[in-house]
Amino acid sequence: MLKNKIGREVPEYIEGIGELRPYEGPFSFKLETRKFAKRISSIKPGESKLLDSIEKSVIASGLKDGMTISFHHHFRAGDYILNMVMDVIAKLGIKNLTLASSSLSSVHEPVIEHIKNGVVTKIVTSGVRGPLAEAISAGILDTPIIIRSHGGRARAIEAGDLKIDVAFLGAPSCDEYGNANGYSGKSFCGSLGYAKVDAEYADKVVLITDNLVPYPNVPASIEQTEVDYVVQVDELGDPKGIASGATRYTKNPRELLIAKYAASSIEASGYFVPGFSIQSGSGGASLAVARFLKNKMIEKDIKASFALGGITGQFVEMQQEGLIAKICDVQSFDLIAAKSIGENPNHYEISASLYANPHNNGCVANKLDIVILSALEVDTDFNVNVITGSDGVIRGASGGHCDTAAGAKLSMIVCPLIRGRIPTIVEKVNTVITPGETVDVVVTDRGIAVNPLRGDLIERFTKAKLPLCTIEELKEKAESITGKAKPIEYGDKIVGIVEYRDGTIIDVIKQVK
Amino acid sequence: MLKNKIGREVPEYIEGIGELRPYEGPFSFKLETRKFAKRISSIKPGESKLLDSIEKSVIASGLKDGMTISFHHHFRAGDYILNMVMDVIAKLGIKNLTLASSSLSSVHEPVIEHIKNGVVTKIVTSGVRGPLAEAISAGILDTPIIIRSHGGRARAIEAGDLKIDVAFLGAPSCDEYGNANGYSGKSFCGSLGYAKVDAEYADKVVLITDNLVPYPNVPASIEQTEVDYVVQVDELGDPKGIASGATRYTKNPRELLIAKYAASSIEASGYFVPGFSIQSGSGGASLAVARFLKNKMIEKDIKASFALGGITGQFVEMQQEGLIAKICDVQSFDLIAAKSIGENPNHYEISASLYANPHNNGCVANKLDIVILSALEVDTDFNVNVITGSDGVIRGASGGHCDTAAGAKLSMIVCPLIRGRIPTIVEKVNTVITPGETVDVVVTDRGIAVNPLRGDLIERFTKAKLPLCTIEELKEKAESITGKAKPIEYGDKIVGIVEYRDGTIIDVIKQVK
Repeated sequence: MLKNKIGREVPEYIEGIGELRPYEGPFSFKLETRKFAKRISSIKPGESKLLDSIEKSVIASGLKDGMTISFHHHFRAGDYILNMVMDVIAKLGIKNLTLASSSLSSVHEPVIEHIKNGVVTKIVTSGVRGPLAEAISAGILDTPIIIRSHGGRARAIEAGDLKIDVAFLGAPSCDEYGNANGYSGKSFCGSLGYAKVDAEYADKVVLITDNLVPYPNVPASIEQTEVDYVVQVDELGDPKGIASGATRYTKNPRELLIAKYAASSIEASGYFVPGFSIQSGSGGASLAVARFLKNKMIEKDIKASFALGGITGQFVEMQQEGLIAKICDVQSFDLIAAKSIGENPNHYEISASLYANPHNNGCVANKLDIVILSALEVDTDFNVNVITGSDGVIRGASGGHCDTAAGAKLSMIVCPLIRGRIPTIVEKVNTVITPGETVDVVVTDRGIAVNPLRGDLIERFTKAKLPLCTIEELKEKAESITGKAKPIEYGDKIVGIVEYRDGTIIDVIKQVK
Repeated sequence: MLKNKIGREVPEYIEGIGELRPYEGPFSFKLETRKFAKRISSIKPGESKLLDSIEKSVIASGLKDGMTISFHHHFRAGDYILNMVMDVIAKLGIKNLTLASSSLSSVHEPVIEHIKNGVVTKIVTSGVRGPLAEAISAGILDTPIIIRSHGGRARAIEAGDLKIDVAFLGAPSCDEYGNANGYSGKSFCGSLGYAKVDAEYADKVVLITDNLVPYPNVPASIEQTEVDYVVQVDELGDPKGIASGATRYTKNPRELLIAKYAASSIEASGYFVPGFSIQSGSGGASLAVARFLKNKMIEKDIKASFALGGITGQFVEMQQEGLIAKICDVQSFDLIAAKSIGENPNHYEISASLYANPHNNGCVANKLDIVILSALEVDTDFNVNVITGSDGVIRGASGGHCDTAAGAKLSMIVCPLIRGRIPTIVEKVNTVITPGETVDVVVTDRGIAVNPLRGDLIERFTKAKLPLCTIEELKEKAESITGKAKPIEYGDKIVGIVEYRDGTIIDVIKQVK
């Protein structure tokens, strides 16, 4: 173990994973190798890619013990694919697999059984929630899971750090040769941004669809040349879980207060100028920030050049109203966004690599002016935790958090000072996902703290008479209400390692006693 | 030298090129390696890709003696880019380069000077015309040029046979970070299908534009992550040479007769059924075939699933009229097509790899039912020459000829029996581009010959009372009019090698005395 740049103890080597490199700063580590690339494979005219069962596709793919399989999480809580495929693989007796889903959620509880039976022995993911997350935190796996950001996963795949042998990708619309999109069909989910990377780099790609359409299904988000097999099934997922309706605006007064402070901070930041760009999440406060900002845009006749990220209907509406020129969408958060991406050429589907990969000649996150991000915890070094709860158990996802914080000119965290009886601003976060040196502003309902690295913003915010305080003051305010939190009792076993987007290790997650 | 499968003498090794593999049949040679991939390269937020001159981009790219540079030919006879860049490179004193343009034409005559001065010592291209072609045929280069089909070039790039160090790509619409398309701006050319491959695989990519637009310029045919530098210049090319207006229908009675026979053959072939797919060129006879076919489609209520290839306004109109569902466009042949690709989502831009690469898991050419192709010569083994004239001098291009002939279920050559006093049907073509085993039907104004391998077609055409004859009969008819052609006097020097689409050598081109 050695201490990385932000003082976290990280291992230099882990059995089953290999040598590790400690985090040294957001842009210190660069790669000079060639990209990894998939195997060349040819089929003759007349040969078919259609197979009539998932089992046949697993067999045809050549999947063997010890290999790595991948999935995408565009179906969110509605996903049937991962469990369906894992059941087939288990039945075929294949063992010792690395499960490399772009993310995992509560619906993937059945993976616990596959771990117990030796089918899955390693997991790499952006995040995990629910019973599977609890089992991992309790130490069910011998090898720690690897948590990667969306940009970091794309980087790892392109660099060959994450070699995918077989990708099983749900495709809401697909032809018999593998041209696919995510925005049509009964299981439509919008962007296939995460899946695009797997399709491009996995040695074998199986598309699973419940909506086989005539050839050629173009425009295509995944093109036929990336696809080996196509399987038709009855249902990819539960539409209710895949895409929720348009998110409603919050009426929570605390969230509205945070949003008001955030919008005023943005206005005062110097970045709120014609042609600015923005990413904002789907949480109540984030959506409210966008709504407040929209009013300011109309008021001041300021138009944005683009909105990035996980996209909500709110940004779609703003684009339609002429307030935002373009939308770059790696993941569609709701029904409105999921439909729009198939209809509006200015609503553009981007891969996770184009979105946020730090080693690809300039991702879109690099061009971001403002990002509004949430947090489970922020510490007095401005480090942010979005992966483990106050009990130390995994219950979140890295997502694009550290990617956009590093890319954006103004990276802003919005969070309540306390949640229930639990402080959000703490001395040391349980787990660092995003390093403080890439976080500029923390906006709470009890005041706004600016990273001392950003003297320019402190000056601007002071002039704008915003309720500024130091991050230490916020921590003390929180503690004065909740008292000091009892430290979590961790065991020695490392159950997860957190990769920074460049592939270095920023933190570890230990077993909870 | 050894004889390949079609009896052509081809070398096993050429100095400056290396080991060669003889042609062994259209689908015999398969690759099992990984694809080649470009170097990983990263830039930080805030870093710019804009450079204010081509010279600076050449220097920034790290171009050195002995490297390989590439260009695309979407600006056709209007291209300014290649000559502009070559002049800068020559001025910088860089020597011994391999020029790997997707094709070359008469406007590239200045390359002759660069060859004489040692700036260019090797050329790989789909084709070449005019003074440069004549100089090559006369032996100006020490190393033979390599002629590759459009699919074969994409294959060579993906396989790492053709490693591009720096690609200089003209972009009619481009933002400062490299998101580009070909269908807007004063120099619009439509599809950037050939350029897409270079952008994906070249180690350094320089986009040259005369139309810098606000970021993000999406949808993008070339995405920012593929681009290293962006240079703005006054003009990319001569609009008159880039895209001609809609091609007019031929009134030539011989072409109309060929077209009539061709359309009747297609109708009788069994492939003219709902959902059929088609590629057809921009020559007079080809366009006329499409027109006759259109009438038959309306008459019989038959709709096509897609049109492929170099696309003309004719197919765009048929798509708009609902006769064709989708268009897959690697190269837009006229103004109507070049505009449509930016406006119509069912007019889809495809890369040269997706178009026709035989080693990419299934190109669109694999799904083609009918292709209508031209020929300079066809021999009694059905081999086709589209590269050298009757004098043996290079004056054409391989294009997608052998790619689509291999992919399509019905590959049909349309050509006059004689041109001027020169027979088209001969005993042995000067140069084989497309092997006879992939050619099904030869339609001339004096009769239709079917490849004996296709007994099924002979039966259908006989039933349909088409003017069938053997290919030998066609040859004799031609000779009875023109007399036997005097054999060309070749020297010993090989000035060009012709790669089949799979990378094997199908023929060589010798110096003309």
